[in-house]
Amino acid sequence: MLGRIQTDELQYLAVKLMIMKYGLFITLEGGEGSGKSTQARYLTQRLKRRHIPAISIREPGSTPLGNRLRRLLKYSEIALAYEAELLLFNASRLQLVSDVIRPALRRGEVVICDRFADSTLAYQGYGRGLSLEIVEQINEVGTQNVLPDLTILLDVAPEKGLQRHEVSNDRYESGHRLDDIMDFHRRVRDGYLSLSLEQPERWLKIDGTLPATEVSKIIWRRVNDLLSGNS
Amino acid sequence: MLGRIQTDELQYLAVKLMIMKYGLFITLEGGEGSGKSTQARYLTQRLKRRHIPAISIREPGSTPLGNRLRRLLKYSEIALAYEAELLLFNASRLQLVSDVIRPALRRGEVVICDRFADSTLAYQGYGRGLSLEIVEQINEVGTQNVLPDLTILLDVAPEKGLQRHEVSNDRYESGHRLDDIMDFHRRVRDGYLSLSLEQPERWLKIDGTLPATEVSKIIWRRVNDLLSGNS
Repeated sequence: MLGRIQTDELQYLAVKLMIMKYGLFITLEGGEGSGKSTQARYLTQRLKRRHIPAISIREPGSTPLGNRLRRLLKYSEIALAYEAELLLFNASRLQLVSDVIRPALRRGEVVICDRFADSTLAYQGYGRGLSLEIVEQINEVGTQNVLPDLTILLDVAPEKGLQRHEVSNDRYESGHRLDDIMDFHRRVRDGYLSLSLEQPERWLKIDGTLPATEVSKIIWRRVNDLLSGNS
Repeated sequence: MLGRIQTDELQYLAVKLMIMKYGLFITLEGGEGSGKSTQARYLTQRLKRRHIPAISIREPGSTPLGNRLRRLLKYSEIALAYEAELLLFNASRLQLVSDVIRPALRRGEVVICDRFADSTLAYQGYGRGLSLEIVEQINEVGTQNVLPDLTILLDVAPEKGLQRHEVSNDRYESGHRLDDIMDFHRRVRDGYLSLSLEQPERWLKIDGTLPATEVSKIIWRRVNDLLSGNS
């Protein structure tokens, strides 16, 4: 005698319980100027309007250690070997997972993170050319096997993204010729595309040149599906 | 017609050439207050008096990144997960290997380092209780497989070492009961002893309660043997 509505309701409740139990971990990935932080803000607001507890964080950062390492990694002039970058990003990640992400997921919240382990694969692995195997190995320590349920890739060709991105004194870009910078960002983008093809069920690739409201709708449709168990 | 003297001379020349080619990498290990930095100074002075090029460095530190991470690891109040410590020590190590140790060894110098990868095994592995396998895996990235030719362990029971060591606001010791601190340092010491038994040919264990001049003579005997190929 279970009708369609009742089945839907049961399914809805089951998903609700699952999220209350395990939380939902969403990461945003993409190059500079792809609109990740804007979309993180939109998504958090939408969830909060629906009274779904959500936190929005970024990497590196969002802990005292993370903020210190962010300054060091992004804005300091200190000499950093590529493998040192890899270790530092993961030290920041590990602290974020231990102190913020895992506790929030355990409380059944939605965690929205601007960049996560895939950034390290794309930038240090594909971009810098470090062995993907070693990057994965260190990422495994940094993430403590806390992995995203959904990763949103805001895909923008470097030529366009870097225009939108304000001129930066970012480590990735300082002291290099424009050609080398573009090559680096092309490798990063190709890396992201490869990663998204390897695990299509986890990744949602969106054309990042679409208007922000458009992108936000596409993201919401998928998140809403996840929240209502239609995925 | 090769007499004994000639053979000795040839051997001496061969060692000289080998050191000129590969350098000699000596690390000092042991608990706080065991006299590592004093012995590092004595040894460097002895080598310099014999016109053997030598540098003396310490971990974490001895690079701009290392000095920053030293402050963070040893003296800051920032929350640090044990695995984050592991990653940060190895970021400092990697930068030191890339910028200082490997270039010096390539120039054929003697490198004397106060603490290296074995400290991380002893403190984060045996002391903190992290999996030795993971510590070794991360150490492998940090050292880039640049490994010591000789490791001197200045062995002191924690009860004695911590007396000699000035009262510190060291991270390892702050906010813990004395009993727990002593237990931690006992595990570290036992860890060092296990490590030295695993690779007896690399380790020289010395009773760190002997007078410093005595310890210095024992160290010099071994280093001199290495330098003249009698090991």
